[in-house]
Amino acid sequence: MSVETLSWVGDVSDGFLRLIDQTLLPLELCTLDCRDVETVWDAIKRLRVRGAPAIGIAAAYGVVVGLQRADTDSFDAQFEKVVQYLASSRPTAVNLFWAIDRMKDRFKIAKKNAANAANSSNSSNPAQPKTDSLECSRHGELKIKLSPAQKADVLAELFAEAKTIHDEDRGICRAIGHHGQSIIKDGDTFITHCNAGGLATADYGTALAVFFAAAESGKKIAVYADETRPLLQGARLTAWELMQRKIDVTLICDSMAALVMRQGKINGAIVGADRIAANGDTANKIGTYGLAISAKAHGIPFYVAAPVSTFDLTINDGSGIPIEERDADEICNGFGKRTAPEGVAVYNPAFDVTPASLITGIITEKGIINPINKENISKIITK
Amino acid sequence: MSVETLSWVGDVSDGFLRLIDQTLLPLELCTLDCRDVETVWDAIKRLRVRGAPAIGIAAAYGVVVGLQRADTDSFDAQFEKVVQYLASSRPTAVNLFWAIDRMKDRFKIAKKNAANAANSSNSSNPAQPKTDSLECSRHGELKIKLSPAQKADVLAELFAEAKTIHDEDRGICRAIGHHGQSIIKDGDTFITHCNAGGLATADYGTALAVFFAAAESGKKIAVYADETRPLLQGARLTAWELMQRKIDVTLICDSMAALVMRQGKINGAIVGADRIAANGDTANKIGTYGLAISAKAHGIPFYVAAPVSTFDLTINDGSGIPIEERDADEICNGFGKRTAPEGVAVYNPAFDVTPASLITGIITEKGIINPINKENISKIITK
Repeated sequence: MSVETLSWVGDVSDGFLRLIDQTLLPLELCTLDCRDVETVWDAIKRLRVRGAPAIGIAAAYGVVVGLQRADTDSFDAQFEKVVQYLASSRPTAVNLFWAIDRMKDRFKIAKKNAANAANSSNSSNPAQPKTDSLECSRHGELKIKLSPAQKADVLAELFAEAKTIHDEDRGICRAIGHHGQSIIKDGDTFITHCNAGGLATADYGTALAVFFAAAESGKKIAVYADETRPLLQGARLTAWELMQRKIDVTLICDSMAALVMRQGKINGAIVGADRIAANGDTANKIGTYGLAISAKAHGIPFYVAAPVSTFDLTINDGSGIPIEERDADEICNGFGKRTAPEGVAVYNPAFDVTPASLITGIITEKGIINPINKENISKIITK
Repeated sequence: MSVETLSWVGDVSDGFLRLIDQTLLPLELCTLDCRDVETVWDAIKRLRVRGAPAIGIAAAYGVVVGLQRADTDSFDAQFEKVVQYLASSRPTAVNLFWAIDRMKDRFKIAKKNAANAANSSNSSNPAQPKTDSLECSRHGELKIKLSPAQKADVLAELFAEAKTIHDEDRGICRAIGHHGQSIIKDGDTFITHCNAGGLATADYGTALAVFFAAAESGKKIAVYADETRPLLQGARLTAWELMQRKIDVTLICDSMAALVMRQGKINGAIVGADRIAANGDTANKIGTYGLAISAKAHGIPFYVAAPVSTFDLTINDGSGIPIEERDADEICNGFGKRTAPEGVAVYNPAFDVTPASLITGIITEKGIINPINKENISKIITK
């Protein structure tokens, strides 16, 4: 894409996260500059940035943005505050927690490095007590009171981690495309739901990466894109991305998928994932489950494409995956005018869980898991 | 309902058809007065009036409206022109043709009556030649040159037929409700798709009639209403009708139906029908087929509620039912602003066909067809 989904602009200490405001696509291609953590939080909350990997990258940079003006006396507390705040933006997005955990791990290392540097600097100056830069927090953990230079170092390490997550994701998307395109034959027509494309990731996507890679390898393919109610990510984003890359795309309403399958138009389905349990049960955008049931009923292979970071091995199966419920207005008042009676009760789950039994294979950056079972999952994840 | 879906206002000769403009609901409850056949045609075409029975009633009154100012010298030709024109408004709506056929049959009788009256009047006045009011049309059919009084008589007969269709539909809806409510237990929660309610019929509805009758018989019920993309008849009309009748309704997107079924919230599904083939395959609003697949996958009974006039016994099975395709703008530009990229290819079928094998029973005004087979269908239809 000519405009990157996410990018960092400027220095670590006073730069900012720039992201495409996906709520304005396809009518406007605008970027949003996030110069404080509240703007990052709001962008994730309001789906200005969405898609599991992209949320993770945004949150990682968000940690840096949130600490640029942090007080050196209470850096730990502010780090905790920033990560907890960011974690509350989309509480069911596993990549958000995965990215935050990576930032936490890197923060520990950065603190240790800063402490070591301080100690070695202290030891060369015995007049200053060795413990000056270390003090016990209320929770009994070691806590650093940082000098401005130490703060810059810690921030640089956190930024490096965010950048690594970002760069890794590019490689992951390419690898998913590479592995996945083997399932697509020349002349095939696939269906996808929501947007698991370049806009959901660093670039190139997960489900859409498979289409992009197939097209780049010279296969002629066509794609049906579910519009994906209520927020129309399929109509607004997937159709737009596929058109940008000159792939033959036809937009349908979600409720039309079963018919086009029955008409024999569909050779396979590929969707992204928000969280995958240890047994392969997959949470993804609402409507994925119904699509998988229809695919099964028509004997059509149904694939999930996702980085291994999407697996949450702490959850045994789909019943343990929490389902985010979103505001009724997304359904009743989503596109500039009210389309339902005032006061009507609404149920608006953001995700559903597709049981592994309905999934033909999971396409990851390390290969395709097929058939799906704990052994095969563990084999790929630990590869 | 306090405002009737359809009503005739005034005399036969200069009255008009008044209908609720359903495209404005639920925000505005406005009526449209159809004083010429073009307004009736446009109302059917643009779904200001929709639902198989309501379309039939509107078309029947439309014939009267279209002939009020017809020339007495070429009444036959104008009748043909009016019915052909009305038939082109929704070419896949079987009730439209059914209603028009009834008007045609009545017209033949009315012509004969007029001719007889003319002849008997002529015979009492031997000075006037007997054949004056009858002449051969180009197609060799007998054609009437009408006197103004004869025109008034023919118009009155056509109006009486339209009124009969209208009145019969009220009775049919009540009978469907009466038979159907036996499938609902106290405390049940059902799901429905699109709007097969009072707005789709003379009043009371088909699928919704079952809910209304169950509630009136004292059963506590709840209903999930699919919003029904692209035109949101579920959100705009079904939710509104159920709220009007104080029935517990929850609005969901079409893509959420599979999830609520999996969550164990749904005891059964009832939908309407636009056309039913001789074997029970049922054409209904797009999305019905996917809902039926999901119901089957979850072991949930799936019912169709429709008058026997919805059966088209000239069609053996669903493969013979033509599927109306509608404008792309309904999907891309439906909420008051554009929601898909300019120039994107769109597939917008208005209906799908649910095979009889996925349907538990068909609830008609003459009883419930269950199990569905040609013998049981024929038994109910000819009852």
